[in-house]
Amino acid sequence: MMVSGSVGKTSSSTTLVECVPNFSEGTRPEVMDAIQAAAASVRGAAVLDRHADAVHNRMVLTIAGPPGPVAEAAFRATACAAKLIDLEAHRGVHPRIGATDVVPFVPLGATSMQLCVELAVRVGRRIAAELDLPVYLYGEAARRPERRRLPELRRGEYERLRSHLAVEPSLAPDFGPQRVGSAGATAVGARLPLVAYNVTLATADLSIARAVARGIRESIGGLPAVQARGFRTADPQVVQVSMNLLDTARTPMTLVFERIRQEAGRYGVQVLESELVGMAPAQALVDVAREALRFGRLDADAILETRLLQHTLGSVADDERA
Amino acid sequence: MMVSGSVGKTSSSTTLVECVPNFSEGTRPEVMDAIQAAAASVRGAAVLDRHADAVHNRMVLTIAGPPGPVAEAAFRATACAAKLIDLEAHRGVHPRIGATDVVPFVPLGATSMQLCVELAVRVGRRIAAELDLPVYLYGEAARRPERRRLPELRRGEYERLRSHLAVEPSLAPDFGPQRVGSAGATAVGARLPLVAYNVTLATADLSIARAVARGIRESIGGLPAVQARGFRTADPQVVQVSMNLLDTARTPMTLVFERIRQEAGRYGVQVLESELVGMAPAQALVDVAREALRFGRLDADAILETRLLQHTLGSVADDERA
Repeated sequence: MMVSGSVGKTSSSTTLVECVPNFSEGTRPEVMDAIQAAAASVRGAAVLDRHADAVHNRMVLTIAGPPGPVAEAAFRATACAAKLIDLEAHRGVHPRIGATDVVPFVPLGATSMQLCVELAVRVGRRIAAELDLPVYLYGEAARRPERRRLPELRRGEYERLRSHLAVEPSLAPDFGPQRVGSAGATAVGARLPLVAYNVTLATADLSIARAVARGIRESIGGLPAVQARGFRTADPQVVQVSMNLLDTARTPMTLVFERIRQEAGRYGVQVLESELVGMAPAQALVDVAREALRFGRLDADAILETRLLQHTLGSVADDERA
Repeated sequence: MMVSGSVGKTSSSTTLVECVPNFSEGTRPEVMDAIQAAAASVRGAAVLDRHADAVHNRMVLTIAGPPGPVAEAAFRATACAAKLIDLEAHRGVHPRIGATDVVPFVPLGATSMQLCVELAVRVGRRIAAELDLPVYLYGEAARRPERRRLPELRRGEYERLRSHLAVEPSLAPDFGPQRVGSAGATAVGARLPLVAYNVTLATADLSIARAVARGIRESIGGLPAVQARGFRTADPQVVQVSMNLLDTARTPMTLVFERIRQEAGRYGVQVLESELVGMAPAQALVDVAREALRFGRLDADAILETRLLQHTLGSVADDERA
């Protein structure tokens, strides 16, 4: 019965990308501040979020804007991290291969994946050439099938690269030297928007979080496009299932939450709460609301702020062309 | 254990308002197009959405932008509707007092309610002066307590104004003439963001939708900040509970949905689906996701598009000052 339509959009769409670099530093504020400041020093690149975790000993920045400024911001942050982080001294529960561990470029809105693959290649070459670091292309930018997925690429972590990179041909980087220094190596790639999502379980037993993670992750026949691991947290009374949801259109957050609740229930363990690490694209949360209240249809355009963003970016682009 | 922070925002915040005028025309495309075009003719005012309903015989536009352009767009649309809509010929199931029935101004982001009250007074005076229409100030802009709420203001609708406006002092408008013509009267006001939310029930019995609506609406002791009515739909097999949620921070959508499910269950009736009319502010849908997946905390800033909008509007404002 209802007829609703989006109107008044400008015909132009602004090319926007996101970059979510991960750095192997989650405790020293002055190091984290310096890396963030390096990224924020580029006009046109918006550092939208910073998330640090002392147990993971890791920091994640979220940068967004037009491709050129975002690529420059990612490079400057990587250069800063290479100077300030020593992998020989780094300990944390999250696997990592370098000071700047991963640099993913992500298409936003109507931007193509191909553009993000090209950005990854360009920035990867530059990191290798100017910072003399080994660079592995991953995700949609991977040039070898075994490098598409980070868990495989990171197997053995920095320590394996240190001992085997010079002698093991399968470890040869896509760009840069066949050796690592104290800044390690960097994986540069392109991917869909990712939702970093944790669910806390009411148990101190890490083996249960690990068993639940095994029960849901894609690699052994669980949910599609879900990477999951069990972790301790700073609170010794609880453990976490920590996930990357690689395609929430295929596997929505609600399905993941329900599956974890079932799996944990098999061990008599309750789910305590959910936690989002960084930000999620509007659609991922709208999908949760749609499922919860049984909306017949509901998309990100139902959010006023999303619609206004499209209109505002379109108007800015029109003005710049005028 | 997690430490996350929003960063890189500009210190400035852009003043933005929304205006959601309702027009008494939901069937003739040429009339709806003309009204929409009048609103869209103002540079800087973004017509983000148009929602029309043939059974209500009503159209809702969502306009957003800086206060000046949005006020001008609302005035032009009102002027156009006054020319093209004849209340003597208008039939629809939704109560209405005029061709342009209501013109609410809504603060977005950091904009104050006071600014929206001032806009309502300014636009209301202009509609009265230039279009010679009776104007009632409502919501936060109301000058009489009995005019704060639309259901009271609209009691008896256009037909009551036609028969009693000239003789009944309590009906005297805040601005404009003490008589109505074929364009009726207009309520101009200010309010919080409103979520227009419908829930469809699996029954043809209108009395059940009405009973459920009575069970939840605030005016008789139900949920705070909820206006609800039962309606038929274009599908004779189902009925709807049609609501305005006036403050989803006080009464979240999830609570409303659950209460409707309970009330309908008392009549042995199932809830079929939810429907959003127009758009919702990000926070209202984020609240649903938070409840569904038990997020410890989750706010609209968790949405990437919301964060980028703030940053983009801030940058535009900075550029304009530079």
